[in-house]
Amino acid sequence: MEKLIERIKSDGTVSGEDILKVDSFLNHQIDVGLLDDMGKEFYNYFKGKNIDKILTIEASGIAVACFAGKYFDVPVVFAKKTESKNLDLETYDADVYSFTKGKTYKVKVSKKYLSAGENVLIIDDFLANGKAAEGLISIVEKAGAKAAGIGIVIEKAFQLGGEKLVNSGYDLFSLAVIEKFENQQPVFR
Amino acid sequence: MEKLIERIKSDGTVSGEDILKVDSFLNHQIDVGLLDDMGKEFYNYFKGKNIDKILTIEASGIAVACFAGKYFDVPVVFAKKTESKNLDLETYDADVYSFTKGKTYKVKVSKKYLSAGENVLIIDDFLANGKAAEGLISIVEKAGAKAAGIGIVIEKAFQLGGEKLVNSGYDLFSLAVIEKFENQQPVFR
Repeated sequence: MEKLIERIKSDGTVSGEDILKVDSFLNHQIDVGLLDDMGKEFYNYFKGKNIDKILTIEASGIAVACFAGKYFDVPVVFAKKTESKNLDLETYDADVYSFTKGKTYKVKVSKKYLSAGENVLIIDDFLANGKAAEGLISIVEKAGAKAAGIGIVIEKAFQLGGEKLVNSGYDLFSLAVIEKFENQQPVFR
Repeated sequence: MEKLIERIKSDGTVSGEDILKVDSFLNHQIDVGLLDDMGKEFYNYFKGKNIDKILTIEASGIAVACFAGKYFDVPVVFAKKTESKNLDLETYDADVYSFTKGKTYKVKVSKKYLSAGENVLIIDDFLANGKAAEGLISIVEKAGAKAAGIGIVIEKAFQLGGEKLVNSGYDLFSLAVIEKFENQQPVFR
């Protein structure tokens, strides 16, 4: 998605070896027009898949998943990361290791909001090692539903999560794919 | 907002004395059509206020704030609840006590995304004791910006957060106001 790649080039900042910060339009401040365009891109790619539901993970996946949800006209479910008194006891769970935060957290979706046979589109902001996506896939499959597609805003291809998903037969579509970082600049595929 | 009140009556569940669960369309599974309508309602009420930015708090405020952001055509900023390696060190902070979770957490917004003189619309899903709204207002005011309005999806009026905000001169608009619970059913104003 050219518009996104241009925005990453102009507003993204790289810290350390391979941490890309896109806080100014995606992860903290949200450019609603750009995210709406992303929702439309996901729709155009996955519209033939009879999507029944979109699944994402709190917090930074929610915005883009909602804009996609508008185009598909389906409910969006966001997996919760922490235990909350207000969450149902009856949940599908997965453990997800976050390299960014350096810890494992539990991801939960109430059994009420995923049903056997549904075609679920998984949407998230980043794909690196693929741990979050794998956790969401395992939740979908525990529900007897199908992970009909995986839509990612920014994929860091060198961390191989995407390759693993594709090799396992999942339909992965990433709006921007970073091959590597060179002189603290992302190089896109 | 009649459509929201009808939805709460049909799909909301009350647990304990005064906990309303709206997980099926707002807090876990999201009805994107309904939230889009909510965004439009906020726009119709606050459109004369020259809103420059919308501020909400992760995670469940993000969706409704994004739909409102589309109508206002302004960026949405979501305050973060936990420390993350990816957040700027330069932040405006506030401590917020959550009665639901029984603990105090720190809420942060990067100084980059709030500027002096901006008219900020604060949007959140629930208003009860008003702690989250007060935290967001204090962050806005620390930035030298103005809390031009507070848009809430569901206000529990008997917990008095709303009354406090109005008495302090803030422009509060809640889409559904619950006066009390009677026989485990919400009674709307």
